[in-house]
Amino acid sequence: SSPEANIRKSIRLTAQMASATAACYRLKAGRELINPNPRLGHAANFLYMLTGQRPNQNHVRAFDIALILHADHELNASTFSARVTAATLSDLHSAVTSAIGTLKGPLHGGANQDVMNLLLEIGEVDKAAEAVREMLTNKEKIPGFGHRVYKTEDPRATHLRRLSKELGEDAGDIKWYDMSRIIEQTMMDEKNIASNVDFYSATVYNGMKIPIELYTPIFACSRISGWTAHLLEQYEDNRLIRPTGSYTGKTNLTYIPLEDRK
Amino acid sequence: SSPEANIRKSIRLTAQMASATAACYRLKAGRELINPNPRLGHAANFLYMLTGQRPNQNHVRAFDIALILHADHELNASTFSARVTAATLSDLHSAVTSAIGTLKGPLHGGANQDVMNLLLEIGEVDKAAEAVREMLTNKEKIPGFGHRVYKTEDPRATHLRRLSKELGEDAGDIKWYDMSRIIEQTMMDEKNIASNVDFYSATVYNGMKIPIELYTPIFACSRISGWTAHLLEQYEDNRLIRPTGSYTGKTNLTYIPLEDRK
Repeated sequence: SSPEANIRKSIRLTAQMASATAACYRLKAGRELINPNPRLGHAANFLYMLTGQRPNQNHVRAFDIALILHADHELNASTFSARVTAATLSDLHSAVTSAIGTLKGPLHGGANQDVMNLLLEIGEVDKAAEAVREMLTNKEKIPGFGHRVYKTEDPRATHLRRLSKELGEDAGDIKWYDMSRIIEQTMMDEKNIASNVDFYSATVYNGMKIPIELYTPIFACSRISGWTAHLLEQYEDNRLIRPTGSYTGKTNLTYIPLEDRK
Repeated sequence: SSPEANIRKSIRLTAQMASATAACYRLKAGRELINPNPRLGHAANFLYMLTGQRPNQNHVRAFDIALILHADHELNASTFSARVTAATLSDLHSAVTSAIGTLKGPLHGGANQDVMNLLLEIGEVDKAAEAVREMLTNKEKIPGFGHRVYKTEDPRATHLRRLSKELGEDAGDIKWYDMSRIIEQTMMDEKNIASNVDFYSATVYNGMKIPIELYTPIFACSRISGWTAHLLEQYEDNRLIRPTGSYTGKTNLTYIPLEDRK
């Protein structure tokens, strides 16, 4: 695992994640696999391997922008877990595996799918405001809002909102965009919480007809470039990452054999 | 993933890790699988599933102690990575996968295998002191020494040292124990660094004739109980774990297209 080998692995993984995501989807759908087209770029190839059709240029551009916006974001939870794994000098693939499992959670990458499912569940633009208020009353979490770092609007959301609108207009259906705007305004009025990168990713992917189950894997296809860049940096100047805890429980307890416990 | 479901998964995983480790070893060795014996405890069953023979009682007791000593250790790197994964509300199995990948590294669980390989490489008791001094001169890391938390002797090492001696005496061969004592003394004289849990685990497992390639998987078989206990605690009162970074690189750089970079 020399630095050179890790760079080669990183580049290969970036290509493989997208190919594997498209391939898994087609296998599950019982359709034949599509080989990548060497004349298409990375974003275009993903859409091509998914559909088997030469993709619409607006979709390619939007998808490329979405991949760039999701590529890296400081010490987010998945990147951090990858660094914790790599810092024991475990291998690059193990570290990326930690990152993927961490991205999967609904408080991280899983939120983009939850956003689209919420929009579908609400179903109608004129039901959006009330639905959100009801969820807030029931203390339910609205996916796609709030961020540990940003207290104002996530700058990635600004770009994705614009793309969401453009793709909706292209497809002649801005219902999901309109619904998103109302949800966003309601969240701002009620809780003063801004949308994050996941909120408009959902309608961007929906606008290019990508199946919902791929939204989180696509996040991983983009973030793999950030993860591996962080890992190369971690290996270059490594130090074990392990915090220390402070025990706050009882002390001097008596050991009770398992079979005697109530 | 209710708390009850996670407790059930944790108990099952604790049994499965040991069964899977023994089964993988036998499959790789081209031997038939051994079903667990319901009349044997967890430690005894592992040795039984590995060898197909009713295990020696001294080995069972030593192995049970080793499993207990390795079961948990505060916010070590693998436990911490599992918590980072779980804190996005990802599933228990994903969190355990992060932990396994993190344990694998030579700065964590992988060190016990490195210790035994070093002893074998040195080969003779009377070569040990010089070999260690030469490694220190070459700034090579001696596996099984030093700990982020303990500045004096790791209390687990005290128990494992005794077991290492006892198992060596049982087998009528205390060569590896003697060699370990000399390495330990040399490290103390030269660097004032004490042995850690990995150092004597190696000769304990060797004393019961466990193959070296299983030392790190056995660490995972023990630590699974600690990992899952931490995960149950994390899910019970969750908060996203993501530090913030401070960017210290250059700013206001100009974007240079990839093909124009030198």
